[in-house]
Formats: sequence, C-alpha cells, structure tokens
Amino acid sequence: MTTIKDVAKYANVSVATVSRVLNKKGYVGKDSEKAVLDAIKALNYKPNSVARSLYHKSSKMIGLLMPDISNPFFPELARAVEDVALTYGYTVVICNTDEDEQKERRYLDALMQKYIDGLILTTNHLTKEEYESLDLPLVALDRIISEDIPTVVADNFRGAKEATSYLADAGCKLILHIRGPKGVHPADRRYEGFKETVEERGIANLVVEAGFKINQAEEVVYNLLKDYPQIDGIFASSDVMAAGAMKAASRAGKSIPQDIQLIGFDGIPLGEMLVPSLTTVAQPIYEMGAVSARLLIKQIEKKPLDQLNYVLDPTLVIRQTTRSVDE
Amino acid sequence: MTTIKDVAKYANVSVATVSRVLNKKGYVGKDSEKAVLDAIKALNYKPNSVARSLYHKSSKMIGLLMPDISNPFFPELARAVEDVALTYGYTVVICNTDEDEQKERRYLDALMQKYIDGLILTTNHLTKEEYESLDLPLVALDRIISEDIPTVVADNFRGAKEATSYLADAGCKLILHIRGPKGVHPADRRYEGFKETVEERGIANLVVEAGFKINQAEEVVYNLLKDYPQIDGIFASSDVMAAGAMKAASRAGKSIPQDIQLIGFDGIPLGEMLVPSLTTVAQPIYEMGAVSARLLIKQIEKKPLDQLNYVLDPTLVIRQTTRSVDE
Repeated sequence: MTTIKDVAKYANVSVATVSRVLNKKGYVGKDSEKAVLDAIKALNYKPNSVARSLYHKSSKMIGLLMPDISNPFFPELARAVEDVALTYGYTVVICNTDEDEQKERRYLDALMQKYIDGLILTTNHLTKEEYESLDLPLVALDRIISEDIPTVVADNFRGAKEATSYLADAGCKLILHIRGPKGVHPADRRYEGFKETVEERGIANLVVEAGFKINQAEEVVYNLLKDYPQIDGIFASSDVMAAGAMKAASRAGKSIPQDIQLIGFDGIPLGEMLVPSLTTVAQPIYEMGAVSARLLIKQIEKKPLDQLNYVLDPTLVIRQTTRSVDE
Repeated sequence: MTTIKDVAKYANVSVATVSRVLNKKGYVGKDSEKAVLDAIKALNYKPNSVARSLYHKSSKMIGLLMPDISNPFFPELARAVEDVALTYGYTVVICNTDEDEQKERRYLDALMQKYIDGLILTTNHLTKEEYESLDLPLVALDRIISEDIPTVVADNFRGAKEATSYLADAGCKLILHIRGPKGVHPADRRYEGFKETVEERGIANLVVEAGFKINQAEEVVYNLLKDYPQIDGIFASSDVMAAGAMKAASRAGKSIPQDIQLIGFDGIPLGEMLVPSLTTVAQPIYEMGAVSARLLIKQIEKKPLDQLNYVLDPTLVIRQTTRSVDE
C-alpha cells in the first residue's frame, strides 16, 4: 500500500509538506504543491483521512498515549480528556507506553487499524516525521514535538521561578533542586527556571537528578542531607518527589517547615493528603486535558484553530511545608 | 428493532435464558430452548453477537466502566486491565460514570454503537436485567451484580477481620471504624468484618459513615475526637479515608501511632508516601484487574471458564501507623 512517505519521496518534498497539501493548511509553494498532487496521482495514493471519510466517516474515537495511568499526574488529565470527548460524542482509548518506543509503535498500529480519529500525545519516543506520517490530527500535551503539532503545556519555567523566589524570600540560604530526567521537556524547563532564579538572587544551591519516583527521590535527598545538613530549602520537580523528600527529612530528624522548607510541582491530590500539607506549584491539570481534547476535536472536525500553542499558567499554592514570608 | 427483551417476552422466558440459548452456554430446558428459537424466527431477531460476527467479526475493544479514574484506587486497576488486554490484541475504552445512572446509560449506548466486545463493570446503577439485555460478555469487578455475571472481588470481610484483630492485639480499647457508603459492596463487607471482630473480642467501638473522600473523613474524625478523646484505634474503609484521619489526629494534637493506631484499606501508593507510612489491608489491585480482563476475554473468545467467581486474598501490610503487637 502506498504511504504518505512514498508520496513525499516521489515528490521530493518532506512528509510535512505532503500533509499540508492534503489538509489544505499552512503555506506550500506552488511547485511543491504541484509535485505532491502529481505524486498522489502517479502512485494512486489514498490518504487515510480520505479513506476514513469515504468508508467509515468517523470512528468517533480518540487515542490518549501516556507513560502510565498509575502515575498520579495522569488520571486527572485522562479524566478531563474523557469528559470533553464525551460532550462531543467521542470515546477515549487509553494507552500506557511506559516510555517504551516498541510499545508506542505497537499501540499506534492497533489504533490506526481501528481508524482512530486523532491522538493526544503525552509521551513521544518517535521522530516528528513518524508522527506526521500517521496523517492524523495530533495534539502534544505536556510535551513539545514540533512547531507544526498543536501543543498544550503549563508554563513550567515561570512556575519554577515563582517557587524558587518564594523559598528565597522566606529566608532559605542553601536550596536543593531535585530535577527530573534530562531531555524531558517539563523537567528541563523547571530546572532552567530554578537555575535562573538562584543565580539572579545569588543564593547557594545544589541540583540532583532523580526519576519522577518517590523512592529514588527519598534516597537521593537522605544521602545529600548527611553531607549538607545546612540545606534549608528544597524545590522538587514533582509532588511525588517532594513526598520522597519529606520522608528523607523525617528519617534525617529534620522538621518541615522549621528546619527545611519544601515546595513541589504539579498540584496532584496527594499534596493535600500529606501532613504537613504540601506547598506546590499547581498546574491547571484538568484545564490542560480539556483544552487538548477541544483542540484535537476541532482538528478532527476541520474547524479553524484560534491558536496552535497553549501555555497555561500554573499557580503557587501555599500550604504547610513553607513558612510565611513575613516570619 | 427487535431486542433480546422482545424475544424473552414472546417466548415467555427470562432474558438470561435467551442469552444462554444464543451463546450455547449453560443449561436450558428443551421446551424453553424451542420457545426461544421459535421466537427468534417469528420476530426475525438478529442478536448483536451474530451481527458482530457477521459484519464486524470483533471490534477488539473492551469497555471499562468506573466511577472516576481520578479516584486513586482505579488507575492501577485500569492499568492492569489495559496491560492484559493489549497482550490479547484488545484496546480499552475508559468511561467515568461518576456513579450517575444517566451517564452510565449514555456510555452504554455509545459503546454498543461501536460494537464493543465486552464490558468490565466496577460500578453498577442499572438492574441486572438491563445488564443482561446488553447481550454482551460482562465481568463485575469489585462489585456483585448477579450470580450469572462472572465476578472478581477481594475478600473484604476477611481483610477487615485481620485489621481489627491486629488493633485489638496491639492493645486498642476503643476502636473507631470509618465506614464507606451503605449499599456499596466492599464498604458493607468491611463493616461486617469489623463488627464481627469487635463483638467477638468484646471491644468498645464506634462506627461513623463517610464518603470515600479525604475531607469528609477528616471532619468526621476531628469532631469525634473531641467527644471521645479516648479513641486509641481507627480502622478506615479506605486509604484515602485513613489519610483524612491522619490529618484530623494531627489537628487534634494526637500522635500516630503513640496515641492512636491507624489501619487503612486498599494498598494504593499513597499509603507509602505518608509520614508515618500507613499500615493497610492491601488488596491485590493489579491482580484483580488482570484476572477480570482475562475472564472477559475468555468469554469474548468463547473459551471455557474455569470458575465464575474469584475472591482474592488481601494482605495486611504493617507499616508505621501501628505499634508492634509485642510492645
């Protein structure tokens, strides 16, 4: 069967260009457009979207690719996607890829066979060309894949700046940042926001990497507290990591917020359940999911998009793991 | 369109009988079988399963109906269902019904239109006749709908007995049980296990009802601790409720486990994240989801079932909110 890749090769243009011609969207030069249309004719190419509209109209299903639904950031996101989808008559297929490229490919194959209408990606281990060659409406959520793919993220940089400034204002003299894995967009941006702030303010700091897992964060912080008992502020790249830091502080005999002030990131329900309850940079998780679902469904239904990229504002929620700035 | 209900009415038998004849499964008397086959002919009835196998073979999709994926018990369950489904080439559609009958009906309509192959129900607001009239393979998970519908539950009664006995052995003299809503199967069984144990052991006790929500549990426990400062043991019907009890104890100036020993139920990741970490009756959540998915897929693929009902054993996991029984 002829694929969009064959068309691109024959026409000597990129897959993205073929996609723009097919979807009549974005700028394509006259010559490229002609080359693409000639290639489509020569190869008798039937794009998926045409096949879909001819034979199936719409499957009224969207796929949600995520690392792991049991990671507590994702259930609320999935819930929002699903709520909005239902409103428009769509159902949602969930796919846990465990950040594994092979698993992601396997899901994409399964979804394409079901004539899925579109995909929301909260994980991405393929190249942008591979995603574009699916020839499907896409939204990147909490990830950035390419500037052609509509994107919904929180302002991770700004959230990290606010959290770090708050710790500085509250008197912290040596702040530890527990960062997430390098190369993961939100982890990188939060690190950059932290780094810029401590450098602007001239505050001593330490950075350590941990996966977004509680046990790893606990061990890393426990070991650092032995070498640096003067650590008096911690900014964690996720609420789960912050929970790990709380356990480490408790094991090391440190009180929160008396000895160490702590701020997490995400705003998942866990934060409120901890004692003391966790100060955190809350992402508008539900809104991120809802905006993504609307953005995807608009594409599926060929409606115009008001904007391609959404950067939503997080909110610093002050609870009990920080002292008042006035103290 | 003729439905299975019309056939049952015409043949003067139950919907379940018609279903058994159609699926060639289970015992049906000769006379009833003939009546059903005559009715099918007279009414020109085409059962869904036939339509499916004739025109669509299999959609290779299963539906998972649950109250709310953002309730922390469900993500791991969904994860397990999805893992097993993928192994057999099925994808999973998630549906959050919020315990709302209208929402549940709306989902069932949407799923039937997609020729879903089967359903796992972790919530049930329709009658068993309505579920049976869907004429679909079903599994009831963490709920009991009828004895004809294969069921997977944890032994909630036994788990509650173990937890309560442990508190008694650890020296508690006045034990509070925070129970879940009446009429919800697991909440009822945990209550019954608690009640039987305190009565057998002759221990003073108090029972209070709360939804499976943290804030409600916190308020209820906080108020009770004012009237009954001598409460020295709490058995909560869920880990989230137990987290609420921890917050209440902290507000009331009580130490855990020195003043009050606390045991939750479920075994969700939250329990390990709390400080002190939560002693709990851990359900085999992943296994429950995996067994359900296998049970459903066996039905879909017309394979024999070894057993209809699975009651899986929970495990009492001792962490830091209880004192050692020897102390």
